[in-house]
Amino acid sequence: MDVARLKSIVGAQHVRDAIDELYVYGADASVHQAMPQVVVRPGSIDEIREIARYANSELIPIVARGAGSGMSGHAVPLKGGIVLDMKRMNRIIEIKPDDMYCKVEPGVVDDDLNRALKPYGLSYPPSPASSRIATIGGEIGNNASGIRSVKYGATRDYVLGLKVVLADGELVDLGARTRVEAAGYQVHRLIVGSEGTLGIIVEATLKLVPLPKFRCLSVAMFDKLEDAGESIADIIASGCEPSMLELMDDIAIKAVNTTLNMGLPEVDAIIFFEADGKVKEAIDYEITTMQEICKKHNGQITATSYDLKERTKYFSGRKKLFAALAKYKDGYACTSLADDMAVPYTKMAECARKIHEIADKYGVIMTAYGHCGSGVMHTKILMNPNDKEKWEGAKKAVEAIYDYVDKVGGVTSGEHGIALSKAPAWKKARPDLMKVMTKIKKALDPNNILNPDKLMDAPDDWYTATPIRYMIDKEKTAG
Amino acid sequence: MDVARLKSIVGAQHVRDAIDELYVYGADASVHQAMPQVVVRPGSIDEIREIARYANSELIPIVARGAGSGMSGHAVPLKGGIVLDMKRMNRIIEIKPDDMYCKVEPGVVDDDLNRALKPYGLSYPPSPASSRIATIGGEIGNNASGIRSVKYGATRDYVLGLKVVLADGELVDLGARTRVEAAGYQVHRLIVGSEGTLGIIVEATLKLVPLPKFRCLSVAMFDKLEDAGESIADIIASGCEPSMLELMDDIAIKAVNTTLNMGLPEVDAIIFFEADGKVKEAIDYEITTMQEICKKHNGQITATSYDLKERTKYFSGRKKLFAALAKYKDGYACTSLADDMAVPYTKMAECARKIHEIADKYGVIMTAYGHCGSGVMHTKILMNPNDKEKWEGAKKAVEAIYDYVDKVGGVTSGEHGIALSKAPAWKKARPDLMKVMTKIKKALDPNNILNPDKLMDAPDDWYTATPIRYMIDKEKTAG
Repeated sequence: MDVARLKSIVGAQHVRDAIDELYVYGADASVHQAMPQVVVRPGSIDEIREIARYANSELIPIVARGAGSGMSGHAVPLKGGIVLDMKRMNRIIEIKPDDMYCKVEPGVVDDDLNRALKPYGLSYPPSPASSRIATIGGEIGNNASGIRSVKYGATRDYVLGLKVVLADGELVDLGARTRVEAAGYQVHRLIVGSEGTLGIIVEATLKLVPLPKFRCLSVAMFDKLEDAGESIADIIASGCEPSMLELMDDIAIKAVNTTLNMGLPEVDAIIFFEADGKVKEAIDYEITTMQEICKKHNGQITATSYDLKERTKYFSGRKKLFAALAKYKDGYACTSLADDMAVPYTKMAECARKIHEIADKYGVIMTAYGHCGSGVMHTKILMNPNDKEKWEGAKKAVEAIYDYVDKVGGVTSGEHGIALSKAPAWKKARPDLMKVMTKIKKALDPNNILNPDKLMDAPDDWYTATPIRYMIDKEKTAG
Repeated sequence: MDVARLKSIVGAQHVRDAIDELYVYGADASVHQAMPQVVVRPGSIDEIREIARYANSELIPIVARGAGSGMSGHAVPLKGGIVLDMKRMNRIIEIKPDDMYCKVEPGVVDDDLNRALKPYGLSYPPSPASSRIATIGGEIGNNASGIRSVKYGATRDYVLGLKVVLADGELVDLGARTRVEAAGYQVHRLIVGSEGTLGIIVEATLKLVPLPKFRCLSVAMFDKLEDAGESIADIIASGCEPSMLELMDDIAIKAVNTTLNMGLPEVDAIIFFEADGKVKEAIDYEITTMQEICKKHNGQITATSYDLKERTKYFSGRKKLFAALAKYKDGYACTSLADDMAVPYTKMAECARKIHEIADKYGVIMTAYGHCGSGVMHTKILMNPNDKEKWEGAKKAVEAIYDYVDKVGGVTSGEHGIALSKAPAWKKARPDLMKVMTKIKKALDPNNILNPDKLMDAPDDWYTATPIRYMIDKEKTAG
């Protein structure tokens, strides 16, 4: 690694290779860990092109990194090399309110973009839960989505155009600025969700939508998870168009009550549902229809409000769930494994129940919650990370869950991507896609320098793929 | 060409090579024409796989064809070979109303699908104007969209999954059945809009949406095109969410009045706008807001209705425009050249005016109309197709229009695809994309058998690319 050369490209202060800094860049929000050789913080497209040319000629891996908030290991530099920290490139290049698009650099933080759009009455809606830190580049790499995807869709629906630096340093300008186009392969949409393996995103043109004038949230409690599941299925089948439809199971409820003292009723399941728009009558109609459906299935409506403060209060249990799970029990860790599969709507409740059964069978604690409106089920495995037996149980639980998901026509990941953690299950489920992906990857990155050994090239066992971050006992390593 | 072998694969009655039938299959709705060697009508995926294996081993081109309603030459078999007529594969495999998706074979006609969905209160909305004949497979190949794309998006937003036969006969199952996924490259969305050059679509899983309960149409007349343009820009900028926003210029108005006796006021421009949804108050709000904007810009509201019959009547001028243009003047032809560019919203009126200026300059008649809500401007060149000077004028007009479109940040095609007619302008505008496309094409179809010589591989001059369909004087041919 010619660190001096990298310093000459981006400036010495933007190249880091001290061990403590490399350590930080060796992890993201997944369970994985691997050390890069050097961290480079480019400030321009030209610098990135020069870095790519150098890396390609020397066969050095490049892993582009946003906030490192990915939960499947996207930003973990499995083969060392260069981590390209994109956060200096955080300029909002232009906002065109009349043409309803904006252009941004990849390091722009999602919430910062939405704050800048607000004065224009516009929003960029596919934001994931991590929008406070997640960067647009990372979201595109991951095809991110969040609680409002039921109405507003995922990142793939908002990327109109991309500038991408290819593995050999070539810069390509892809896509358009217009709402529709039928003008050649949608390569920019192929880049969305390619997890940094096909090119380095250096600029994005994003579709914007009007901010809703009103938003109404309602909450329903259920004594039986199955009733909540029936309600979700009926809400979808009724033609309702919620802007959010979230489920929390009993374990999730207990977690926020125990660790955050939320005081939620300890029922079997809670559904949060929301409608938004410009006209109150239409929102009232949606909310009332959804409430009636919940009541029909023995749900109890405990709260309904248009007020931002009240909505925030009612939803805080769900909003803070991830933090609550992380503190579920002293010495426990909240691990992202089999944590974001998507299943057909009609399978949501069955899937939640199945997760509980599997967790019991393999002696781990698992919770089920998620964006039911998009078919996304979230789970976390809660356990003492230093108990090796629990990891064995977790491994088996993960396998059993993915077998179930595949059987009912679901997908390995609805939101968090494949990278390392989900690769074994995904490879089993999607051999056809893998074959085509391998052909495309070879065509665009023949030297395999861009985020190598992820997705179809990832190790077959996530558990031994890298050292596991949570284990204090370091006996178990990647070897 | 081993016709006997093809007959043994699909049955003798499904293989056609009589000259009159080949002639029919040599054209689509574009100006182009080229003869295939044989037409094959497969009835199953296995038959298609066998045909592909044979064609790939013998380096015979395959052009998959739906209704042949494409306007840029997608289905014209430029290098002869096999035309694969997909219309026998017209089964709606399943409709899953509760999970909001359906699975169809590629030969299903768009309107037939929507008729089948209606009893479930569902729709597949990206339908183009040709939905009466267009097949789902063709629409996917073209990334089709139509008058409601402003609210409902294009085909690319509805394809959840695809089964595709690759050039070598391999069958791959891509995408998912769930609303969101972050599970590997979005290869199925790369196939959308690839114009038959990457694979043969043999099954599609499509996202469905609820049918609106109410739809309201309103019509505004303008004495000045610029006022109509300002209204369109303000409607978009206001956060209005029309389900349709259409413009007709003076030539288009004259055409429907002259040829169809429509009796529309002969103003400079008409805007049709529509809102739909479940709640009347919300639709009223949208319609009133749009009407106020039109009035502010000197527009006169001449009609407003929720009634299907009345809406059909008011809109019939726009609906029948294409037919009217085809009969504009005795001996004239209505040619699809530079006919569907997309430009930023704020450039719609300027673009329409520019089209008139360019038409005048080059001695042809051009009209401007389109789906302003999506930034799509439609034009047609009306002329005597046997007057060679007019073709010279048309060629220059097309070039001038695309130079303008590129300059204002538009794209060569918003809806009708590139194929042959748009390829010269598109190649000039999108050299970066072409380079990446070439790499992907080589990776997936190394022998270049799938719809060869289209898009990046199309001839540099559309005028000499093939014989021109409308010319009675056959002196001008592809040579």
